[in-house]
Amino acid sequence: MEILPILVLFLATVVSTTQGYEPFVTHHIHLLRPKSGAGGDSVPGLSCLSWRLGVETNNIINWKTVPAECESYVGHYLLGHQYRKDSKVVTNEAWLYAKSLNLTNDGKNVWVFDIDETTLSNLPYYADHGFGTELYNSTAFNTWVLEGTAPALPESLKLYKKLLKLGVKVVFITGRGEDQRNVTTTNLKNVGYHTWEKLVLKGSTYSGNTSYVYKSAERTKLVKSGFRIIGNIGDQWSDILGTNVGNRTFKLPDPMYYIS
Amino acid sequence: MEILPILVLFLATVVSTTQGYEPFVTHHIHLLRPKSGAGGDSVPGLSCLSWRLGVETNNIINWKTVPAECESYVGHYLLGHQYRKDSKVVTNEAWLYAKSLNLTNDGKNVWVFDIDETTLSNLPYYADHGFGTELYNSTAFNTWVLEGTAPALPESLKLYKKLLKLGVKVVFITGRGEDQRNVTTTNLKNVGYHTWEKLVLKGSTYSGNTSYVYKSAERTKLVKSGFRIIGNIGDQWSDILGTNVGNRTFKLPDPMYYIS
Repeated sequence: MEILPILVLFLATVVSTTQGYEPFVTHHIHLLRPKSGAGGDSVPGLSCLSWRLGVETNNIINWKTVPAECESYVGHYLLGHQYRKDSKVVTNEAWLYAKSLNLTNDGKNVWVFDIDETTLSNLPYYADHGFGTELYNSTAFNTWVLEGTAPALPESLKLYKKLLKLGVKVVFITGRGEDQRNVTTTNLKNVGYHTWEKLVLKGSTYSGNTSYVYKSAERTKLVKSGFRIIGNIGDQWSDILGTNVGNRTFKLPDPMYYIS
Repeated sequence: MEILPILVLFLATVVSTTQGYEPFVTHHIHLLRPKSGAGGDSVPGLSCLSWRLGVETNNIINWKTVPAECESYVGHYLLGHQYRKDSKVVTNEAWLYAKSLNLTNDGKNVWVFDIDETTLSNLPYYADHGFGTELYNSTAFNTWVLEGTAPALPESLKLYKKLLKLGVKVVFITGRGEDQRNVTTTNLKNVGYHTWEKLVLKGSTYSGNTSYVYKSAERTKLVKSGFRIIGNIGDQWSDILGTNVGNRTFKLPDPMYYIS
């Protein structure tokens, strides 16, 4: 195989001087980097990279499943380095913001964390279920949740620990139901989230309400009870839009599902 | 140059059967796709791709310049296919939304367009000024604007034409000053934007106000005068956040500058 480096180098030189060949070359380059996770797509007519950007910027909304053509792209993105790098940029910005604040130490400063795909990761489940290309199956997903074995999203766990050291209180607001309080508590503690001010789960009074409505209402309750929401982080736009969203909001990547 | 296709094909075959060489190959692959715009980065410690996602999702705010290490990445992104693909996904979603509406034909439905990097493109200027890595220079930028030669962003022009056919009125709200009304009018008409309901420029009463404040106030005026803002598209989050943002908002890509 010693001929390979020489060939690549030669080719790089040739191609860099013959940009007219670009469309042809682009196709083969894609085949060479299957695990980059950031490499666009090989699907005619649909750019999975553009689709993902459209989703992350809230341009594409109310979608039910990841396009079937993008299963491999989304899978490689999530299991490769790019998802983690993207998450790190978000939590890093959150930390730069938090530590820049001149906080009064009166116990009223809270940071709101969503749980699924923010605090905990369900990637082990989604890796077995087409990375979002399959329609949401509540039975299967709840079986996974009840195992209580979801890992932490490492970037969020680091942010959580730093915020606690700063004297900020943490409030979890999750779309998980009240019936999952025990398993959620155990799961959070097992992976490193040892303390919090409140763990708000979706009670039956909100049945039929969107996450947007439920989370807005619960944040409003927080503010009315005297807390200042200095920050708010989630993977869904419905976590960070609405009323009393917080002084600053942070959107983690999630190309697997959409919650309104 | 007829040897090139054969070489590429041969190389693709060799490499696809030797994935153990991936780290080595990845480095050279980057050199082979200078115009892909979606290829991550080669900068240690900073993922330009993650930076761009952070910017587009409003996680990274109030930045003054593109990181110097990302000049080449951002330039290739903008001049290559990915910027246009990303823009097309946004305007396509906007069109799918608009045509799904059951609009009353009373002349009150408007769509708000921002101008720079939305309706018109300043890419010819930024290509000569480091793609956002240089600090904003109002003298140089205004000289460019006064030439009146900015091309249309093709995806936005198509959306504009379709909306007009649907009976929707167009309102431009731009951060350009009143003193640039004539050149802006001429430029818009020259590249295909022939008609509009209003062209709102930033008057002197707003001097010292952010774009967020100015645009919110002007949209509120529109709504108070009886218009319904059914849609709103811009490249800055300050175009689409605030009051009376519209029934749905659309964020075009812009990794070159940030306006608060």
